[in-house]
Amino acid sequence: MFKLIHSDKNSQARLGKLSTTHGDIETPCFMPVGTHGTIKGLYPKDVKESGAEIMLSNTYHLFLRPGMNVIRKAGGLHKFISWEKPILTDSGGYQVFSLALLRKLSDKGVEFQSHIDGAKHFITPEDIIDIQSELGSDIMMPLDECVHYPCARAQAEVAMKRTINWAKRSRSHKDSLRKHGPNKAQFLFGIVQGATYEDLRNICAQELTDIDFDGYSIGGVSVGEPSNLIYNILKITAELLPAEKPRYAMGIGYPQDILEAVERGVDMFDCVVPTRYGRNGTAFTSTGKVKIGNSPYIEDFKPLDEKCSCYTCSNFSRAYLRHLFNAQEMLGLTLLSLHNVHFFLNLAKGIREAIKVNQFKEFKNDFLGRYLSD
Amino acid sequence: MFKLIHSDKNSQARLGKLSTTHGDIETPCFMPVGTHGTIKGLYPKDVKESGAEIMLSNTYHLFLRPGMNVIRKAGGLHKFISWEKPILTDSGGYQVFSLALLRKLSDKGVEFQSHIDGAKHFITPEDIIDIQSELGSDIMMPLDECVHYPCARAQAEVAMKRTINWAKRSRSHKDSLRKHGPNKAQFLFGIVQGATYEDLRNICAQELTDIDFDGYSIGGVSVGEPSNLIYNILKITAELLPAEKPRYAMGIGYPQDILEAVERGVDMFDCVVPTRYGRNGTAFTSTGKVKIGNSPYIEDFKPLDEKCSCYTCSNFSRAYLRHLFNAQEMLGLTLLSLHNVHFFLNLAKGIREAIKVNQFKEFKNDFLGRYLSD
Repeated sequence: MFKLIHSDKNSQARLGKLSTTHGDIETPCFMPVGTHGTIKGLYPKDVKESGAEIMLSNTYHLFLRPGMNVIRKAGGLHKFISWEKPILTDSGGYQVFSLALLRKLSDKGVEFQSHIDGAKHFITPEDIIDIQSELGSDIMMPLDECVHYPCARAQAEVAMKRTINWAKRSRSHKDSLRKHGPNKAQFLFGIVQGATYEDLRNICAQELTDIDFDGYSIGGVSVGEPSNLIYNILKITAELLPAEKPRYAMGIGYPQDILEAVERGVDMFDCVVPTRYGRNGTAFTSTGKVKIGNSPYIEDFKPLDEKCSCYTCSNFSRAYLRHLFNAQEMLGLTLLSLHNVHFFLNLAKGIREAIKVNQFKEFKNDFLGRYLSD
Repeated sequence: MFKLIHSDKNSQARLGKLSTTHGDIETPCFMPVGTHGTIKGLYPKDVKESGAEIMLSNTYHLFLRPGMNVIRKAGGLHKFISWEKPILTDSGGYQVFSLALLRKLSDKGVEFQSHIDGAKHFITPEDIIDIQSELGSDIMMPLDECVHYPCARAQAEVAMKRTINWAKRSRSHKDSLRKHGPNKAQFLFGIVQGATYEDLRNICAQELTDIDFDGYSIGGVSVGEPSNLIYNILKITAELLPAEKPRYAMGIGYPQDILEAVERGVDMFDCVVPTRYGRNGTAFTSTGKVKIGNSPYIEDFKPLDEKCSCYTCSNFSRAYLRHLFNAQEMLGLTLLSLHNVHFFLNLAKGIREAIKVNQFKEFKNDFLGRYLSD
């Protein structure tokens, strides 16, 4: 399933290949996020052309809308959204804790009200596996309990233990599944929790490794804690995980975070930042962020990023993009989103090429030297 | 410039070819509208792939925002918006009369306040030619006075006479232009006004023909009058115009209007309907309009239009499009807009193919039989 191709000589960075029924994914990889089954504002064909080999979608959102009936009848998520490459679905745990109303948590599962219409739902870890089985995603996540930062040790420990318990039940339930959805060959990752407490992360990683998952996610990072704590947890958690399995840092992140995580041995990333920033008029470029509405761009006929080969940069100037943004034209937001997604995918590609020749550190320093120069 | 290729044996429908410096346009043609220099929500590459050979843009809007300084420095409108095919620009007359604040009209020109920031402008017919020269559009329109329906005869006559006067000045000014913008080989059309009064249309068409333009627009139609009046004015005006010049019905229209106009000898059309309806969740299909938010589409896994080969219909179901629309996802609006633009361009293509074999009436009846069947 996962093949470790090469380890960088001067860091923990790894080059790998993840093989799924919907195709291979070279790692380190960036996964654009399609919360409602769409990477906001972009055609799937353009996302694929940008180099995406996998996308992420959100179990919680799809479960509530359009609901499983529709997706089941469509023949699964890939068919419903017309994305034939791999899909990773999260467990919905994070969304239940951040979006849902009136949630009530017990070892059995979680009761919550939909943030859309207030409807009550009770969901167990087994349900989450069933739902993802019907979605037919290539990589599933088990239900977990994610805590925010700061979090008292006692609370983090309870959440971590519940996460392990739920992980065991998820694994058992997956193994016992008689009726599969449209994709029988789904992988299941374990999610390491434990907040910023190294000993809790240690226990969690050990227990999950004993259960034996297809890969391991590092959860509960980038939830409000400072960067140095994020990087430290990524480092110590990655070190605890088996080398022959992929490692996924959930919700990471900005370009610098991705680079720091790769250096510490993380292989997979997802983040809403490229499209969210695009919709707000901010482009990521090799020399830093560009807020396209700003006046210096009124007569700036250069592309967003002269080093970029995306459709936006190949065809349109900052002046035109600024005009679109000012005139509140959708095209401005989609062109910026497209560029940003391309930028993140291209960063991942650059990282892979650098690891291949043991130049990851040089690549990282070069990139950050330009990127943070403003 | 314009070549009449074939006249339908059973109607006034005509097949023609319009040649500009940015390429040829087969007529009858539909021109998607890019008000602010963007066909709302669509990438130019996708509009071209849909078969568009020319687009329309709005002088009034571009003049106010981003303003001529930016477009001049960009090297003209084609370069600014990255559209290398022909562009037709309107005169802004219609927008001055429908959008601008506190307009004051005289034979000399028109004073108005920008609807964006209230800034005062005074513009003459000569200015409008200068502006379009700087835009570098392939087909320019002279400033005209457009009246709404109903309009008293006396008022319509004043507007018609002013339109002729301004048309003469526009033609002279164009001929005397020493400094051209980025496109020296621009065509100038005359705009026939006269409201619903046949004798006024007659006078106007005669006078404009005497001035001799590269083509003729039929203005002041579809401004609130009933369909039979629109069709009658199109018919009698088209008959008054020289056969060897293209005829353009401004702002027309819905599929049935386009068919009626083609039957009466009109060659060119533009309308915001495909993208405006797309943004509001309505798709045009061969069997009529589909309001995608409606509940019958919840589990409808057919494409919008089974006869359509556009990207939307080749990849996505009504159920998915409805989901996107309900979740207020941009992608739903852009996919519907793309389909609608393709639908109108494909209608024009079907019309051309039918004229070629003297089957226009059969095509029209077939199309409307299905389209109006709901």
